Amino acid sequence: MEIPPSVINIIYSALEEDIGQGDVTTNLLIPEDRKSKAHCIAKENFVLGGLPFVREVFRILDPSILFKTLYNDGSKVKKGNIIAEISGKTCVILKGERVSLNIVQRLSGIATLTNRYVEKTKGLKAKIVDTRKTTPCHRFMEKYAVKVGGGYNHRFGLFDGILIKDNHIKTLGSIKKAVREAKKGHHLFKIEVEVKNLKEFKEAIESGADIIMLDNMSVCDMKEAVKIAKGRVMLEASGNISLENVREVAETGVDLISVGALTHSAPAVDISLKIVK
Amino acid sequence: MEIPPSVINIIYSALEEDIGQGDVTTNLLIPEDRKSKAHCIAKENFVLGGLPFVREVFRILDPSILFKTLYNDGSKVKKGNIIAEISGKTCVILKGERVSLNIVQRLSGIATLTNRYVEKTKGLKAKIVDTRKTTPCHRFMEKYAVKVGGGYNHRFGLFDGILIKDNHIKTLGSIKKAVREAKKGHHLFKIEVEVKNLKEFKEAIESGADIIMLDNMSVCDMKEAVKIAKGRVMLEASGNISLENVREVAETGVDLISVGALTHSAPAVDISLKIVK
Amino acid sequence: MEIPPSVINIIYSALEEDIGQGDVTTNLLIPEDRKSKAHCIAKENFVLGGLPFVREVFRILDPSILFKTLYNDGSKVKKGNIIAEISGKTCVILKGERVSLNIVQRLSGIATLTNRYVEKTKGLKAKIVDTRKTTPCHRFMEKYAVKVGGGYNHRFGLFDGILIKDNHIKTLGSIKKAVREAKKGHHLFKIEVEVKNLKEFKEAIESGADIIMLDNMSVCDMKEAVKIAKGRVMLEASGNISLENVREVAETGVDLISVGALTHSAPAVDISLKIVK
Amino acid sequence: MEIPPSVINIIYSALEEDIGQGDVTTNLLIPEDRKSKAHCIAKENFVLGGLPFVREVFRILDPSILFKTLYNDGSKVKKGNIIAEISGKTCVILKGERVSLNIVQRLSGIATLTNRYVEKTKGLKAKIVDTRKTTPCHRFMEKYAVKVGGGYNHRFGLFDGILIKDNHIKTLGSIKKAVREAKKGHHLFKIEVEVKNLKEFKEAIESGADIIMLDNMSVCDMKEAVKIAKGRVMLEASGNISLENVREVAETGVDLISVGALTHSAPAVDISLKIVK
Amino acid sequence: MEIPPSVINIIYSALEEDIGQGDVTTNLLIPEDRKSKAHCIAKENFVLGGLPFVREVFRILDPSILFKTLYNDGSKVKKGNIIAEISGKTCVILKGERVSLNIVQRLSGIATLTNRYVEKTKGLKAKIVDTRKTTPCHRFMEKYAVKVGGGYNHRFGLFDGILIKDNHIKTLGSIKKAVREAKKGHHLFKIEVEVKNLKEFKEAIESGADIIMLDNMSVCDMKEAVKIAKGRVMLEASGNISLENVREVAETGVDLISVGALTHSAPAVDISLKIVK
Amino acid sequence: MEIPPSVINIIYSALEEDIGQGDVTTNLLIPEDRKSKAHCIAKENFVLGGLPFVREVFRILDPSILFKTLYNDGSKVKKGNIIAEISGKTCVILKGERVSLNIVQRLSGIATLTNRYVEKTKGLKAKIVDTRKTTPCHRFMEKYAVKVGGGYNHRFGLFDGILIKDNHIKTLGSIKKAVREAKKGHHLFKIEVEVKNLKEFKEAIESGADIIMLDNMSVCDMKEAVKIAKGRVMLEASGNISLENVREVAETGVDLISVGALTHSAPAVDISLKIVK
Repeated sequence: MEIPPSVINIIYSALEEDIGQGDVTTNLLIPEDRKSKAHCIAKENFVLGGLPFVREVFRILDPSILFKTLYNDGSKVKKGNIIAEISGKTCVILKGERVSLNIVQRLSGIATLTNRYVEKTKGLKAKIVDTRKTTPCHRFMEKYAVKVGGGYNHRFGLFDGILIKDNHIKTLGSIKKAVREAKKGHHLFKIEVEVKNLKEFKEAIESGADIIMLDNMSVCDMKEAVKIAKGRVMLEASGNISLENVREVAETGVDLISVGALTHSAPAVDISLKIVK
Repeated sequence: MEIPPSVINIIYSALEEDIGQGDVTTNLLIPEDRKSKAHCIAKENFVLGGLPFVREVFRILDPSILFKTLYNDGSKVKKGNIIAEISGKTCVILKGERVSLNIVQRLSGIATLTNRYVEKTKGLKAKIVDTRKTTPCHRFMEKYAVKVGGGYNHRFGLFDGILIKDNHIKTLGSIKKAVREAKKGHHLFKIEVEVKNLKEFKEAIESGADIIMLDNMSVCDMKEAVKIAKGRVMLEASGNISLENVREVAETGVDLISVGALTHSAPAVDISLKIVK
Repeated sequence: MEIPPSVINIIYSALEEDIGQGDVTTNLLIPEDRKSKAHCIAKENFVLGGLPFVREVFRILDPSILFKTLYNDGSKVKKGNIIAEISGKTCVILKGERVSLNIVQRLSGIATLTNRYVEKTKGLKAKIVDTRKTTPCHRFMEKYAVKVGGGYNHRFGLFDGILIKDNHIKTLGSIKKAVREAKKGHHLFKIEVEVKNLKEFKEAIESGADIIMLDNMSVCDMKEAVKIAKGRVMLEASGNISLENVREVAETGVDLISVGALTHSAPAVDISLKIVK
Repeated sequence: MEIPPSVINIIYSALEEDIGQGDVTTNLLIPEDRKSKAHCIAKENFVLGGLPFVREVFRILDPSILFKTLYNDGSKVKKGNIIAEISGKTCVILKGERVSLNIVQRLSGIATLTNRYVEKTKGLKAKIVDTRKTTPCHRFMEKYAVKVGGGYNHRFGLFDGILIKDNHIKTLGSIKKAVREAKKGHHLFKIEVEVKNLKEFKEAIESGADIIMLDNMSVCDMKEAVKIAKGRVMLEASGNISLENVREVAETGVDLISVGALTHSAPAVDISLKIVK
Repeated sequence: MEIPPSVINIIYSALEEDIGQGDVTTNLLIPEDRKSKAHCIAKENFVLGGLPFVREVFRILDPSILFKTLYNDGSKVKKGNIIAEISGKTCVILKGERVSLNIVQRLSGIATLTNRYVEKTKGLKAKIVDTRKTTPCHRFMEKYAVKVGGGYNHRFGLFDGILIKDNHIKTLGSIKKAVREAKKGHHLFKIEVEVKNLKEFKEAIESGADIIMLDNMSVCDMKEAVKIAKGRVMLEASGNISLENVREVAETGVDLISVGALTHSAPAVDISLKIVK
Repeated sequence: MEIPPSVINIIYSALEEDIGQGDVTTNLLIPEDRKSKAHCIAKENFVLGGLPFVREVFRILDPSILFKTLYNDGSKVKKGNIIAEISGKTCVILKGERVSLNIVQRLSGIATLTNRYVEKTKGLKAKIVDTRKTTPCHRFMEKYAVKVGGGYNHRFGLFDGILIKDNHIKTLGSIKKAVREAKKGHHLFKIEVEVKNLKEFKEAIESGADIIMLDNMSVCDMKEAVKIAKGRVMLEASGNISLENVREVAETGVDLISVGALTHSAPAVDISLKIVK
């Protein structure tokens, strides 16, 4: 995975946000040339995600820091596992500690939650996909964490996919008109339409949509939609998906299940950084 | 509240992240001069937080958008309440929708969780405070949401407070030496020390610390610490604080209770944006 | 058309590039409060393109400048036509002159060349599309000019489309393997494959590609490809398309004809800016 | 040649423009650790220009890429020549391919066109110089390409030269007044004045201009101007210079011939990048 | 005077430097909607310089602030004079106070010192000019202050003038070679050469330099140089110029006297900002 | 000392400010691959400060430059001492010369002036501290120079300390109210109050301020204040401190003496850079 410049900038800004004009405590207490080794330690069980960004944190602060990972992203680490070893100037390790942990704790939280959804739907064809309900400026990292957890990515933004939603349809008047206009003007993206009941669903099918998002529809209606579609279009279940109902939804035969909570409500996992010598 | 430039930059980058070279769907479907009015609607009960940043989203996109708030940050809104009305070009409303909701849903989540902690400790002197366990580049917004929810802010970064932690003490050898060095070099910040048992606590008291963080100490030990301190130093409880045990911790008589989960694990609330005409 | 922030930045940098620490001549000669009116005048016949970016140049320099357009982008202007009137501080008009003209001369050149290709293929279904052979950092503006001239846009970058090219196929070993991998990992973009002969073309068809780029193939082979495709896939002609052969290529029945020269080799048109009072 | 930071920024932005959140095709198809070697191959005869910027493209993407040039800028390469070899990660080579080619194809186009003008005027003292009619934000690179092609640079912007043009003179009232004011306020730059006929030319001479630009004057009048000047001032021919008439213009005895087309209308040359193993 | 973007950026960064995440004191004490009027008051006599930059400080912070100047830059203000009135939100006035004063106190210091040099040389033709010995990133503002004080500007940087200095000559071997090379490659700038004695001076004259800098030469030698030059070249005295000897130097007949101290050692003047209601 | 990114940016911008599109003289005269060695030489006696920033200048320009320091910051160097040796490409040394000297001359000036104040107060407990009267965007560097000279730093900005000044008190009505509000809202910073006479001083003491700034008070009143304070609060003398009166002020028994002139009016020291081979 290569990190795009906009993500490097976010990491850079995060360091500025935390360190500002300097780490007063460390500058007062730690001799500049003191060296240490530190461990990143899992304080609970989780799916690990985000180490390349942590590596970047330390590379930005000081390229001479040694950052050795003991598990790869995607690994299921156990409480007590040493995830990574960091060696170099003590003051650099301490300055990078909080930003590093804030990143890897959040992304591992996302990877872990995604993985729970993926496991729930094991053996079924439905893919767990993310949404645009991500933390502002963290979309690349969060979508990476979804993949690490076994999920798939939906579009990255408004620029790389066509998704005709309720507000578009309300403004334009009809699903048919919307799909027709979209097809006329664009030839590279598949065209996805959001529908909220079977009547709209049929209109979307007829208008030639490539993907149809079934928004907040009942499991019963989703089953019916799968039957009607006969594999001609891709179906995406969306809205109010939880760990409790995701398997039932997957069993309807939909192709994709999108879950906003993967990125907007995953609790952080607990990881600590301890200087060991 | 005035928004610092670094936060404006984050909002700006968030819009670039989502919109990129353009909103393909909207550009294909919505005439550029079409105007609409939209409502932001609460889909559940929560404490509202983040409207000034949403206002900024639309100001950046198009200064002629009218953004009218019907509730203030800090209000307890109910499911179904219209939080704000947005009027102006349809295409601008649609382009700003997701970034706006991503911001206000996250910050309201933080405000709501903070408020639950604050309510749990009602009538006691302990203040609920945040930590540096914030989302990278979102610290200002998240700390704002903590205040909106009734909490207080701890230091903003490594630059505006002295907090001598376990890693510093391990490196330096003793709490006393650490506090002495800090006092010699700095005269503006109060000096806070992290301790993990009563032995360290006593050493910290004797060394002249201004604030002592009781890290993961038992309620029983915290009570003892309060007794020993006799009001000479400020005491901060930290580590493993939950909604279940926060009142008990507050009842020990500590001055501050810091809760990382306020900012690293608050689930987002549900808010939707609907075009109404 | 809304201008994305990255394009605003380019215009901004262009002004810095030209003006630097100041317009020495104008600062020496023109009183700061002197006002003028200037005309942008077509010095030859062409298809106009780029006025919104010129408006932006003057808005950045001084929001009080009046910029009145007398023709819209896409208009076929004649030698001698006044395209726009600019009123305000003389020194601002002079500082913005060169950057404005550099933009509108280039983009009108692209619109004009595109339009010639479009006119050559009038009445046929083939769309003239652009490529990624654009001037670095000018892609949005240049693709806009292509649309203004009657053409269509291909993907904006590596991020919003899948195009499996010769170098990918060489690395992977076979078209089939490439298409299969792409389909497995991605569900939103149509999958386009570049082929250079009928053998590869058939392999691409069989592998389930959505769009096939016929690279540097003879008109004869292209006709054969159209016959084989039977409308199941979209066909794009590419490579060595010129004003001389474009109609013949269109007549083969392909859907898209991509022309790199639209953006990499369109000569600028001639436009002057004259102060008239 | 050292590349100024503003140019590095442009290359950086160009990579962001093309790659954005990632090269979807390459990320799907090419294993991250696959290595390749690629050739940049001339597809026609031209004067090479721009390799230091291509080197920078790959340095920005991945400092471990080996970039070996087989010809130097300024070389006349032949169709089929291998210009450079690139070795390293396949995915990096593919991500940098388009931006690299877009740069070197454009700049070689400028070098080649410049060189044709230079060859046309061989043996005469007139220097071929560029103008400010450059692509926004590409001035440094384009002026570099002009030098590579054997031309000379005129001023870089409004900040490093005094050129009193028609619009200045119209605003001020007379050439004499303009030159006098400029001389009073500035002592480092030579003062250049644009004139469009012999009457204005004589006024410029008398007013003490150091350089006089003969704008769109006939060859006959230019000869007369050279005679009048008697070497006391430098003369620059400008306006409607073409490959057809440039020698005739040079033979009038002018010192400089400025040609806007060098940078605003040079067609790109054809170069391809092929993975060879 | 129009402020270039790089200077706006410096002012912007200066505000970020001072305000950071917020003005803690003001945020705690001053209600957000409180309004005040404040005076900028001269605490000593000086030549005023820098008000346009102060206006920019407040425009950046809050465009609704009223900033009314009672004296213009270049005015000789007296102790007690009210220089400007600022009206608007109290918290904005307090946040902008220090940056504003830091700017106007420094620039007025430079204007004042420059003016003392200018007055010392009244009636003589020598112009007082600045150098590149300016505060990093403040060159535009400081050179503006020099002009406000009655001085003139030397080149802005390495990019807009040719000055052949001792280190160049040492590297190249001889003044003659250096001037010859410079003349061959460049035709827009006058060529200035630094010499440190009459021998070098004569060599510079013979080589055709346009301007000769007499570096640290005695008044006696400078007189001799003026005699030798006979007005054919411009002469600049430089090095160890003080208020004590500047008139004597001017009386030698040199054209320019450059004084580094104008910008590197001018003491700030004293100005205060007081809220008056 | 680690240099924060905002300071790297300032150095970077300073190089852009000075070099712009290129060092015309050096580009014309010095072969690109010529190598030299240069000395930075003290031209007077002073306290050295700023070498890490000079090192950064050359690192930014060309990481292969060797920069060897012969004295450390804080050293008292003598006229004629070689401070540092720089080896590498001649053109890089010449491009970095002026920015380097501008930095080290200014910062050594500040270190030297600070040191004179520190020496004047030798043997007394009062610390010499700086103020926010620094050059915009140079605060980190200037406060570093103060420390190098033996002084101490006051707050870095409005964000990392509470200082209730006359304008706050005027707006709020009373010192007591101000201190009470500040204590209620904030628990990490000590609270400092500015007073201008003994009456205000007593009010500040009673209101529980932690530090009291005695602004422009007479030596006699300061003595009285020390007596009243009895060590319960820290006292800071401020306003009209000079080398003449600083010892007398220190003898009153105050803890801190803040001197704005350290950073706003320290004259630069003289250092030259000479190519030696």
